[in-house]
Amino acid sequence: LASFSTAEATVVLRENGKTREKTLTMGTLNPQVKAVEYAVRGPIVTKAGDIERGLQQGQKHPFTEVIKANIGDSHAMGQKPITFLRQVVALCSFPELLDSSSFPEDAKQRARRILQGCGGQSLGSYSASQGVDCIRQDVAVYIEQRDKGVPADWDNIYLTTGASDGIVSILKMLVSGQGRSRSGVMIPIPQYPLYSAAISEMEAVQINYYLDEDNCWALDINELHRAYQAAKEHCHPRVICIINPGNPTGQVQSKKCIEEVLHFAYEENLFVMSDEVYQDNVYSPDCQFHSFKKVLYEMGPEYFNTVELASFHSTSKGYSGECGFRGGYMEVLNLDLEVKAQLVKLLSIRLCPPVSGQAAMDVIVNPPLPHEPSYLQFHKEKSAVLGALAEKAQMTEQILNTVPGIKCNPVQGAMYAFPRIFIPPRAVEAAMSLGMSPDMMYCLRLLEETGICLVPGSGFGQREGTYHFRMTILPTTEKLKVLLEKLRDFHIKFLKEYAPLEEPKRSEDDTQEALKQFR
Amino acid sequence: LASFSTAEATVVLRENGKTREKTLTMGTLNPQVKAVEYAVRGPIVTKAGDIERGLQQGQKHPFTEVIKANIGDSHAMGQKPITFLRQVVALCSFPELLDSSSFPEDAKQRARRILQGCGGQSLGSYSASQGVDCIRQDVAVYIEQRDKGVPADWDNIYLTTGASDGIVSILKMLVSGQGRSRSGVMIPIPQYPLYSAAISEMEAVQINYYLDEDNCWALDINELHRAYQAAKEHCHPRVICIINPGNPTGQVQSKKCIEEVLHFAYEENLFVMSDEVYQDNVYSPDCQFHSFKKVLYEMGPEYFNTVELASFHSTSKGYSGECGFRGGYMEVLNLDLEVKAQLVKLLSIRLCPPVSGQAAMDVIVNPPLPHEPSYLQFHKEKSAVLGALAEKAQMTEQILNTVPGIKCNPVQGAMYAFPRIFIPPRAVEAAMSLGMSPDMMYCLRLLEETGICLVPGSGFGQREGTYHFRMTILPTTEKLKVLLEKLRDFHIKFLKEYAPLEEPKRSEDDTQEALKQFR
Repeated sequence: LASFSTAEATVVLRENGKTREKTLTMGTLNPQVKAVEYAVRGPIVTKAGDIERGLQQGQKHPFTEVIKANIGDSHAMGQKPITFLRQVVALCSFPELLDSSSFPEDAKQRARRILQGCGGQSLGSYSASQGVDCIRQDVAVYIEQRDKGVPADWDNIYLTTGASDGIVSILKMLVSGQGRSRSGVMIPIPQYPLYSAAISEMEAVQINYYLDEDNCWALDINELHRAYQAAKEHCHPRVICIINPGNPTGQVQSKKCIEEVLHFAYEENLFVMSDEVYQDNVYSPDCQFHSFKKVLYEMGPEYFNTVELASFHSTSKGYSGECGFRGGYMEVLNLDLEVKAQLVKLLSIRLCPPVSGQAAMDVIVNPPLPHEPSYLQFHKEKSAVLGALAEKAQMTEQILNTVPGIKCNPVQGAMYAFPRIFIPPRAVEAAMSLGMSPDMMYCLRLLEETGICLVPGSGFGQREGTYHFRMTILPTTEKLKVLLEKLRDFHIKFLKEYAPLEEPKRSEDDTQEALKQFR
Repeated sequence: LASFSTAEATVVLRENGKTREKTLTMGTLNPQVKAVEYAVRGPIVTKAGDIERGLQQGQKHPFTEVIKANIGDSHAMGQKPITFLRQVVALCSFPELLDSSSFPEDAKQRARRILQGCGGQSLGSYSASQGVDCIRQDVAVYIEQRDKGVPADWDNIYLTTGASDGIVSILKMLVSGQGRSRSGVMIPIPQYPLYSAAISEMEAVQINYYLDEDNCWALDINELHRAYQAAKEHCHPRVICIINPGNPTGQVQSKKCIEEVLHFAYEENLFVMSDEVYQDNVYSPDCQFHSFKKVLYEMGPEYFNTVELASFHSTSKGYSGECGFRGGYMEVLNLDLEVKAQLVKLLSIRLCPPVSGQAAMDVIVNPPLPHEPSYLQFHKEKSAVLGALAEKAQMTEQILNTVPGIKCNPVQGAMYAFPRIFIPPRAVEAAMSLGMSPDMMYCLRLLEETGICLVPGSGFGQREGTYHFRMTILPTTEKLKVLLEKLRDFHIKFLKEYAPLEEPKRSEDDTQEALKQFR
């Protein structure tokens, strides 16, 4: 029995001399799957996992620990769960605990209400495809409060498996046409790679609009017009996606900017997808989160009653960081009624979002009130998380900006810094000769030499000739300091190696000076 | 502001006299989404929900309760969760409970092990895209034991969001080519509509092979050959899907039959997808579950080392019935190494399966052992569920077969009966004039007159001119009796209405006689 590989097929000689080819090979794989890229869990992350396992098995590296700053995974970086949320989920999971005196009444009341909404009063039943009714109602109440009274109808709320599920479902509805009438999807560059991956898998047309790095990654309305007009030549632009607060850029959009985007979408008949999963993650005192829905409402009924909008939220970010529960919701506005029925049909194929994730979502939209027993602890835990994130956002920006050849915009919100890094021409050449993007080579060497795992900017998109990486601000303050210092040393060494004659503009003293204020 | 609807677009007059068309209408919706059908949550189920809400609001109907026998949702039908499973999930959700003396040690040990495998020891972290390592290891051990020592490598185990997620992912990999070389997917008729929905959404070619209703819905190898040869004319058959035990048919495949299928797949270079989510649900004493993997192994290395196989399991069925947790796994065999990397990439876009669902899956593959404190209770609960299902499977078959014009094959396994119903020609005509399939009209009338919610056979596929419905055997024994009696009365009334001159071959006494043995 001989077995060998070719580029097209793996072939096995049968006993009878015939050959049996593999059915599924790189040659026969769905080309849309092949085309998909997803950097947040790309080759660097795989390599980081390998190194981690190696360390555990006693392999030697120039470091003792891999620091994963590649993904917005708060608990993995040491953040503790919000007690109240976990109490409610545990009570729902094992309702015998409802008789236990060690759980507070408000947690029990939440759990009873959720269970009442579940088939057979069990988290183990499928929920309706749109989610548990009472949780959708709670989401609508939350949105109304968040938006200072702008009405929210729970019929427009769909619970989802994380935000990704909702985003992919809405995109899927919107993709149609062939050739020049194929749907075009406008996305920011840099973007969160879920968008490019979904667009590529669905063979829609990706329309890049570039955020303005020189202006704190703000969205520039002129750039939207430029991108739209250019795209109209070869596709039918139908959707604009916005991420606010931004991932990976950390910018928070101004109300004026949102108005401009919505006006543009109104004029050009675009469907608006507003990714607002970081709505609780705003750190800069000059910034405030404005929901697209509220701004649309304030623009008047002409806008509020016509622009088709889907906005997305999740349990994974904010102050709870419950990624593993895969909870989320979307709210749709002005969706055609028949289309809504089609959306429910599409969602019904995956049966329902995980019900424990729905329960977690419920706690986030329906937290303890001031008069309830869990309020103080909840509030303390929430403030501690958001306070620490705000401090780390500031620290990350400031320290990075002391490093020669790194320039970091303010981390106004979300969980990431996306600094620009100077990569000397000789390093660019070296990367090219390895068939690698220069920022990929940079991040790979960083990982190999320091154990720090970041994602190259090319995974998110960046203007040609500029290089970046995305790092989360999630490590504990102590670990983040270590990370930033190691990163600094690596960067200086990298510059020395590839541009030995250039004079660094800042010295190590600047970094130490900046670090002091966070001690 | 005027708003009106047309078939193609909803149009709103703008203040300036221009019109703003909706972007997303039935006219512009993705045609693949429009083409998808999913009967298990189709119009009948929507209507059942409406009636249920109406009843709650005091509307009058000729019944006081909707009985939902449309979906395999055990807990919604009153089945209680397995205590041990829920204890482990609660402990994982709220680890403070690990200090509580009210939880048994074996549950705590499972929870500690799972948490050890989670980032930051929290269910709230993303797991690896393939799932938590130690749970994948437990799955591999479970499979080896189930298959009496056939080796299982945890590198081939992927945890999934229910079984559906895995099935859709594997199908997605396999779809390629255009025109006559487009991938063809062989599926049983009747089938579980996830398959037809996914095939339609991916624009693959559906190849029907008909199960033999006259032979207890057995798979007939000659029918496979017929379907394959016919399909080769217009597509490239690349996959064969098998559901064993069968959904909606309840048949359990013999070892000989599985060998024939595997030999066929080997000869024709087909990828085998084996949906084994009902592997614990075998009731007929003459039947036994054989995994496709074990049979492949026993056919010798020539087969075991070449045939590409993906098999699927889930937390939703079996004796636990934990649908809401969306847990599941798949095992792949003989997958090309590069293709495996592509699969992980594809799965990484959805980040990870819900981690509490992974924990639930772990309990199912790693239940209490005889020496452990929870063993007795676990065993008792498991046996009670499976014993009741076996009784209800037998009862359903026997009672249905006492009704004139209904013929039901033995429910050897799974959770459904798929009886054939005689629909008189005049009723067929009446349905056609309503633009409805006859079994849809039958099920709608059944719902309206009795409150019983079933799914028409046309949602699963059936030979032309034959009519069926799918009903679950999940209601409690008492409720199932009520359901079956109501169904009998409805059916006789339906026959009298549309075929008043035909003499029923069986009388009500037969039904009562058959019911007696289950009292």
